[in-house]
Amino acid sequence: MSRFWSARVHTLTPYVPGEQPKRRDLVKLNTNECPYGPSPLALAAIRDATDDSLRLYPDPTSTRLREALARHHRVTPDQVFVGNGSDEVLAHIFQGLLQQDAPLLFPDITYSFYPVYCGLYGIGYETVALDEDLRVRIEDYRRPCGAIILANPNAPTGIALELEQIERLLEEHPDQPVVIDEAYVDFGGQSAVTLIARHPNLLVVQTLSKSRALAGLRVGSAIGAVALIEALVRVKDSFNSYPLDRLAEAGATAAIDDEDWFEETRARIMQSRDRLSDGLRRQGFEVLPSSANFLFARHPHQSGAGLHASLRARGVLVRHFTVSRIVDYLRISIGTDAECEALLTALAGILDDNRD
Amino acid sequence: MSRFWSARVHTLTPYVPGEQPKRRDLVKLNTNECPYGPSPLALAAIRDATDDSLRLYPDPTSTRLREALARHHRVTPDQVFVGNGSDEVLAHIFQGLLQQDAPLLFPDITYSFYPVYCGLYGIGYETVALDEDLRVRIEDYRRPCGAIILANPNAPTGIALELEQIERLLEEHPDQPVVIDEAYVDFGGQSAVTLIARHPNLLVVQTLSKSRALAGLRVGSAIGAVALIEALVRVKDSFNSYPLDRLAEAGATAAIDDEDWFEETRARIMQSRDRLSDGLRRQGFEVLPSSANFLFARHPHQSGAGLHASLRARGVLVRHFTVSRIVDYLRISIGTDAECEALLTALAGILDDNRD
Repeated sequence: MSRFWSARVHTLTPYVPGEQPKRRDLVKLNTNECPYGPSPLALAAIRDATDDSLRLYPDPTSTRLREALARHHRVTPDQVFVGNGSDEVLAHIFQGLLQQDAPLLFPDITYSFYPVYCGLYGIGYETVALDEDLRVRIEDYRRPCGAIILANPNAPTGIALELEQIERLLEEHPDQPVVIDEAYVDFGGQSAVTLIARHPNLLVVQTLSKSRALAGLRVGSAIGAVALIEALVRVKDSFNSYPLDRLAEAGATAAIDDEDWFEETRARIMQSRDRLSDGLRRQGFEVLPSSANFLFARHPHQSGAGLHASLRARGVLVRHFTVSRIVDYLRISIGTDAECEALLTALAGILDDNRD
Repeated sequence: MSRFWSARVHTLTPYVPGEQPKRRDLVKLNTNECPYGPSPLALAAIRDATDDSLRLYPDPTSTRLREALARHHRVTPDQVFVGNGSDEVLAHIFQGLLQQDAPLLFPDITYSFYPVYCGLYGIGYETVALDEDLRVRIEDYRRPCGAIILANPNAPTGIALELEQIERLLEEHPDQPVVIDEAYVDFGGQSAVTLIARHPNLLVVQTLSKSRALAGLRVGSAIGAVALIEALVRVKDSFNSYPLDRLAEAGATAAIDDEDWFEETRARIMQSRDRLSDGLRRQGFEVLPSSANFLFARHPHQSGAGLHASLRARGVLVRHFTVSRIVDYLRISIGTDAECEALLTALAGILDDNRD
């Protein structure tokens, strides 16, 4: 607290990201990173860009990267916005599109950064409860609102909506911006990018942090009608002319172009997810059906906080949330098969200890 | 324009950065980049960090970089904030510290991003006219205000205030945040970082884009009392948990630690500046006394717009501003000696043409 702070600063409740431990010997299944390194072509492109040209500012419009994303999604570059991670992209979206007179709607259980952005920009919001199976029910959003944001697949549940559900939501709210946050869509969800041509109120957010294994490079994107992208460009150009550095643009462009690496890696993670899900169920866990690179699971006889702490004591990091509805769940990122085995072994030991 | 935009978006007047031409054959003296490549140790550190660890999120607190900056400035790491270029750092400062009930003050001629930030966050401001020599006069800031921001050296004039003037300003405004934007301080200005221990209202902003030749990496910093830094951390953690990617942190840390490269490079640029200043004066230009890596100059018989266009036609980019008080000035970044010679040769040709 300080008398020099702007009034808003006193009221903020900042987001708390998952732990980034300094220790290298932990099995790190807590922040939904990819267990495999990024495309070798991305690493090569970064090395190529690491030269004296770093003395020059980057392209403020990140044209090469937007062109690559446009090719990948079969849209035009002016339908693509990029930023310093999807968190920055989301921040600009909240300020530029989701600040409306009527309240913003999002689920009670979802990415916990959404209410933080609302606090930063003074955006009124209402949460809409997930149903008893922790699913989004589109009909529950039939109420007066200024805008809607949904994560699909949702986090931390991992549950995906069908594309026709998203289209129904868009049709029921033609006068409101509807943002679909697809951070995890490449692991089994259906992207709403295909709906953009028909729905001028739709904006889709994606990231290179998960399915492109570039969390350390900080690159996210938004895809939508030109008028929506223009709002984001106006905010960005009033905030930071060059949000993407030269290395991030080079690496991200090469990563997007490497479709072979992409298809192979996400298939591998989905296979590991299915195996891990089976393993957890065999240990008695209830595992939600996941279309993401993580599982959300609880054990009928164990507390989430207890399992989280016991796993940490055994060198395995997973994510645990203190929100009451999901306090007994663990969110477990899909690791390598060896890491998933280490988790199952640790859990078996804990369950065994707790049985005594 | 779109009905989906937040109200604020309609009112924004975004910043327009200097041109980043795709053509490589231009003499580029328009965006105050360093004419020499960055520290080889910085490039090596980036190459070392370009590996599979990019799959992992960066350190959200950028501890290694803040420690390096703390060593360099002889402060503690909790007195240091870092961001994605000093533009992002400034954005958080405007939102977190400069949004006060009374208006913010800054010069009528200064970094033209300041009023843009005010527009983005709805901050009331008043500009204070530079004197007839385009100098900041501290006594002109003796008026009711909520906060003050000054660039020192100022941009685009290049004129620096003495440290005792800054201290007087701080003493005259003990109840207001005072931000000194030192993007150009390493080329002859006196840094106010030494005043931080005595003035809890002082925040100093610096960048690696100019004197560290890393404009392409996007790293800036703020140094001040812990309570001021805490405001910025709260804003940052409500906006983007990881503003610095792994490569930016690695490269910036190595660049800050390479004091030899730093001392040599800035001395070289200051020497070139003095030579270019002499050359321009010999051609009849009036050149403001610069403590920056650029010169601000006008010719008694030539329009700034005309010279700017004629230089571009001859393949030399400089920056020109359409603000009436400075409409006849050119802002010329210090290039290599060969680039400065190319500028002087082009100008000689233009002046010769215009004499006919």
